[in-house]
Amino acid sequence: MEITRTDIEAAAGRIEGWVRRTPVLEVQEGLVLKLDLLQPTGSFKVRGAFSLLTSHPEGRQVVAASGGNFGLAVAYAASRLDKTADIFVPSTSPDAKIARIRALGARVHVIEGFYAEALVASEEFSRDREVLTAHAYDDPHVVAGQGTCGREILAQIPDVDTVVVAVGGAGLIGGIASWVRDDARVIAVETEGTASLHAALAAGRPVTTEVGGVAADSLGSARVGEIGFEAASRWVDQSVLVTDDDVVAAQRWLWDQCRLIAEPGAATAVAALTSGSYQPGSDEQVCVLVCGANTDPSFVAVDSSV
Amino acid sequence: MEITRTDIEAAAGRIEGWVRRTPVLEVQEGLVLKLDLLQPTGSFKVRGAFSLLTSHPEGRQVVAASGGNFGLAVAYAASRLDKTADIFVPSTSPDAKIARIRALGARVHVIEGFYAEALVASEEFSRDREVLTAHAYDDPHVVAGQGTCGREILAQIPDVDTVVVAVGGAGLIGGIASWVRDDARVIAVETEGTASLHAALAAGRPVTTEVGGVAADSLGSARVGEIGFEAASRWVDQSVLVTDDDVVAAQRWLWDQCRLIAEPGAATAVAALTSGSYQPGSDEQVCVLVCGANTDPSFVAVDSSV
Repeated sequence: MEITRTDIEAAAGRIEGWVRRTPVLEVQEGLVLKLDLLQPTGSFKVRGAFSLLTSHPEGRQVVAASGGNFGLAVAYAASRLDKTADIFVPSTSPDAKIARIRALGARVHVIEGFYAEALVASEEFSRDREVLTAHAYDDPHVVAGQGTCGREILAQIPDVDTVVVAVGGAGLIGGIASWVRDDARVIAVETEGTASLHAALAAGRPVTTEVGGVAADSLGSARVGEIGFEAASRWVDQSVLVTDDDVVAAQRWLWDQCRLIAEPGAATAVAALTSGSYQPGSDEQVCVLVCGANTDPSFVAVDSSV
Repeated sequence: MEITRTDIEAAAGRIEGWVRRTPVLEVQEGLVLKLDLLQPTGSFKVRGAFSLLTSHPEGRQVVAASGGNFGLAVAYAASRLDKTADIFVPSTSPDAKIARIRALGARVHVIEGFYAEALVASEEFSRDREVLTAHAYDDPHVVAGQGTCGREILAQIPDVDTVVVAVGGAGLIGGIASWVRDDARVIAVETEGTASLHAALAAGRPVTTEVGGVAADSLGSARVGEIGFEAASRWVDQSVLVTDDDVVAAQRWLWDQCRLIAEPGAATAVAALTSGSYQPGSDEQVCVLVCGANTDPSFVAVDSSV
């Protein structure tokens, strides 16, 4: 299923005023950061959440499975749009995240196990109920919402050659690639422990992978979505991998050079550049999407703060 | 001594390419943050440092007294401009800050005591030497450099009604007021424990005050500079005070709402809004300058991270 630029334009119109047009920061010549970590709830996920919820204005109740950024974003969007949210979170989610989702007014259902168990429970709950079930990445309205970030990047950096994006379930890169298409290179970045798109591109179809490592909390979808995979297959120019150590080094680089706190999943995109896994040409204008900040910032406290 | 817009234009030309044109972020309708905490070395001070050092291109050696943001900025500017820097830091400065200044290639002289003792030592060192002595705030090139931030704000937010700025030695607000003049309201914000401008405006001249509290490390100049005082007397519309608790609450607000880490001195400006010390009108377009991030971010770790 193809997400068109018209779909993304429509999503942009619906979510305007609910999410931020996040700024870009030129860090050094040829390297610009798109600061989507400055969104409400601290990640790009509000784009997709508002896109989905505003596409069903009549629905009063939304159900989602997520103990992380998507759960936060859906809970936030629902509260702003006067809907009720039922968020199914795995019992393995940190208490602080669960508390934050609850603080946004959502009904939180803690399910024994991991994401897969929470997803099943959310589907059982939704059956026979008139609710809007929000999939975190494999939903056309969600992907179109994430695509609005790509639309902003091209508008803010008209001469951009390359857009570098971290990949979890491929909703974000699917949306961005569906906007960018052939107007710039799109580079997908994953850690070695969360390489679901890398594996899918190699296999020619989404395949189930084992996940782990430092970025697993936000990038750890075992299998990319169909919509994201289709867009990535057409418009992603290169899929690169980084190590967990590269990610941690990129987190420190973002603090040292820019005083930004990025979560591992967001620093993964930056790590492609700082580790040299992706090496731009000498005149290449690169935009790296920094897509989330939901981490404990004390990792920079010991020797980097001044 | 008046700093003119021509002086600030000249400074902007000299520092272009060395510092960042930092972005603005619309947080909610009517409230925009100017993110100068994203500068190299984590504060606006690089503007003044590069302005001063580039105004003396022949000088090879620069001397400054500062255990904090200005010391970092001078050390950084000197290293980029192939000059040597002698930075006099009080022994009361945190080891991490001293190490960071040294890591930037500066010669660090640790002086027993506080800022005043370090300043005296730096002046003794400079005597009979051909060096450029950099005053942290009461220098026309430094103030003109800080004024470039005001120039950017008016360019980035053409309809801004009000610019809100934290005050230490009044170099930043002096520069910003010297650009903004009557094109927008300028609001000065200090903590009750670092109220040197508030006291000066009441007395009609810079007076020596006692300093203390949570923002003293960056706003704790006992006495404002003459240049900043003159500009503030003419163009600052209101001087407001906030408490230390207001500052800590503003730091948490910046993390919760925007995922930004601001040092207390920078959160002081935001605190004017979040505490209600300054209450804008219903249609007022307010820009708050968030001017520094050099703090230990673990203060948000306990209950705010998600």
